[in-house]
Amino acid sequence: MVRPIENVAVLGAGLIGGSVGLGLRAAGTQAVTGFDVDGDALRIGLARGAFTAAAGSVAEAVAGAALVILATPVEAVGSVASEVARVAAADAVVTDVGSAKRHVVDVCEAALGERFVGGHPMAGSEQRGMSAASADLFEDAWWILTPTATTSSDAYRTAALLAGTLRARPVALDPADHDRVLAQLSHLPQLAASALVWAAVASEEKESHLGLAATGFRDVTRIAASDPGLWVGILEANREAVLESLRGLQDGLERVRKDLAEGDWEDLRAFLASARSARLGLFGKPELHDVAVALSMPVLDRPGVLAEVTTAAGALGANIEDLRIVHSTEGGRGRLELIVAGEGPATALAEALGGLGYRVERDRIDT
Amino acid sequence: MVRPIENVAVLGAGLIGGSVGLGLRAAGTQAVTGFDVDGDALRIGLARGAFTAAAGSVAEAVAGAALVILATPVEAVGSVASEVARVAAADAVVTDVGSAKRHVVDVCEAALGERFVGGHPMAGSEQRGMSAASADLFEDAWWILTPTATTSSDAYRTAALLAGTLRARPVALDPADHDRVLAQLSHLPQLAASALVWAAVASEEKESHLGLAATGFRDVTRIAASDPGLWVGILEANREAVLESLRGLQDGLERVRKDLAEGDWEDLRAFLASARSARLGLFGKPELHDVAVALSMPVLDRPGVLAEVTTAAGALGANIEDLRIVHSTEGGRGRLELIVAGEGPATALAEALGGLGYRVERDRIDT
Repeated sequence: MVRPIENVAVLGAGLIGGSVGLGLRAAGTQAVTGFDVDGDALRIGLARGAFTAAAGSVAEAVAGAALVILATPVEAVGSVASEVARVAAADAVVTDVGSAKRHVVDVCEAALGERFVGGHPMAGSEQRGMSAASADLFEDAWWILTPTATTSSDAYRTAALLAGTLRARPVALDPADHDRVLAQLSHLPQLAASALVWAAVASEEKESHLGLAATGFRDVTRIAASDPGLWVGILEANREAVLESLRGLQDGLERVRKDLAEGDWEDLRAFLASARSARLGLFGKPELHDVAVALSMPVLDRPGVLAEVTTAAGALGANIEDLRIVHSTEGGRGRLELIVAGEGPATALAEALGGLGYRVERDRIDT
Repeated sequence: MVRPIENVAVLGAGLIGGSVGLGLRAAGTQAVTGFDVDGDALRIGLARGAFTAAAGSVAEAVAGAALVILATPVEAVGSVASEVARVAAADAVVTDVGSAKRHVVDVCEAALGERFVGGHPMAGSEQRGMSAASADLFEDAWWILTPTATTSSDAYRTAALLAGTLRARPVALDPADHDRVLAQLSHLPQLAASALVWAAVASEEKESHLGLAATGFRDVTRIAASDPGLWVGILEANREAVLESLRGLQDGLERVRKDLAEGDWEDLRAFLASARSARLGLFGKPELHDVAVALSMPVLDRPGVLAEVTTAAGALGANIEDLRIVHSTEGGRGRLELIVAGEGPATALAEALGGLGYRVERDRIDT
């Protein structure tokens, strides 16, 4: 059922772009053309086999490409998207890998229209650059896609196929939801880790004491070693959501400060207990990979339907493994078919879609 | 050179007390008597072989003990120490394993005098209890000792031997320094992890999004699953130092908030860069285990000398592997002999001690 992805252009030869190239090549893709303004990174990408060809310009890279992946730092995605819009084939699908989505999606849709879909693989490393790239960087990681009412089903399907080919788990979220969730789950922890190290160093006359740090401190602050330039770009692109989540963290710490200052040990205990039960609950859900369920439903053949269905799946954490729209010969109507991993998520999604007015049929597929 | 530790009493059959028992038994100690008000924990300790006997009371546990380890929750250490003072042999050495030291050392010295030395193994787990205990919990972990002007050299030496027997690395710090460092390296990260989870949950209408968390969030918040009751005790015991370090973290986050709100990307970059270079530098020091250096010096035979020398070593991160005071027959004078791991730390310590007025002789020992 899975067609191979061919004729891919990767713009940006960093950790993510390089890992995409290596992963595609490992999965059998024949042609991956790379481009980067940094010639050294590009040469390393060629030498490591992430790219089968190195282009001298964006135009050269995307000539003949069926899929273009924008893998530049997030602050450069907009200008590269504009250039791609001028030079790529009209039916080429374009996606990105940036850590902030609302602003990026606005800019890219303005330039590229329905053939763009935002993407964000939730994999990374405190290391960076082509040298740290790896074919299995995305294995079992979430790959968030952010389709909107504008996105074509072809764009969504191709980007989801890219994620699946790299052994990631595609999931759809609304761009603003993505930014809010990422602020909480990634951008805020990054700032907290940096602030913890900063405060520890500021408090020490003799730094050597910090070498006493046990596992807890090492784990909590590992990501403080990430690249500052990269992070300033991400934080700038997701400024509003980060500010909102930062306010939540500051509120939590102020509650703790007050508890400590006033000796309110009961409230402190309640605070720690609520965080504990949330943390234990976060990752406790069993995942079923052995069952797939097909859902199908009649839909009006318009792009907004796709975003409505896939973001409903994203909100439930349901993993859509495949998706297609079968167009009706009568025009204006069609049938949307989804493959969802796991009985539980499929049932929840079918119910949610029923609530949105869709008439959903289900079929269990034994894989 | 190392005499076995015998006749040990462990008061408190939790993660630490249980791991001490298992570790001592693995190292060949014949008699480890356990006591806990929780009879179930004590029975599990016997069944797992952490204890060779289960006592029915503190008095029964410490009868005939040469070393008594206070492994209760930190808020109970003071009252147990008072009971031990009434019933233990006059020459029994007593140490504890609590995560806050200044208050504990004050109370225990008041009860026990020179035979008490504070201790804190920098090992733990978000798990707890005898069931999670392990003979190798302390392997390669720092074991902080907090000798004072009151501490006898016998107490220090016995506690350092305990740490070494459990394959931990003993290091001495002033009790107040310990509390300040621990607030930064352990108590503050714990609060930050809990506050991050708390803020994330508070921000989510649908919790399922949090399942999207990548490795960064999982690492940063792992310790938020720790036991709230245990942590309230630790935070209460180290209240002042935690409040001071919390103020530092709040200052750092407020600087970030201001940078984001005002778009001061240069200051944000400088903040992240300073944290990055500190984090990279923290654990980069090579450790030499292949060379040991003997330092020896004439000293006045009074307990304060020991604290002065060992805390100087602690401040430098120098690992004292063995220590003895050779008493002079003339009385009032003696010779302190130290074995220090690594040429660099030994040289630094010899210089620091020279600066304090000691006449230090060095000898390299090939091990």
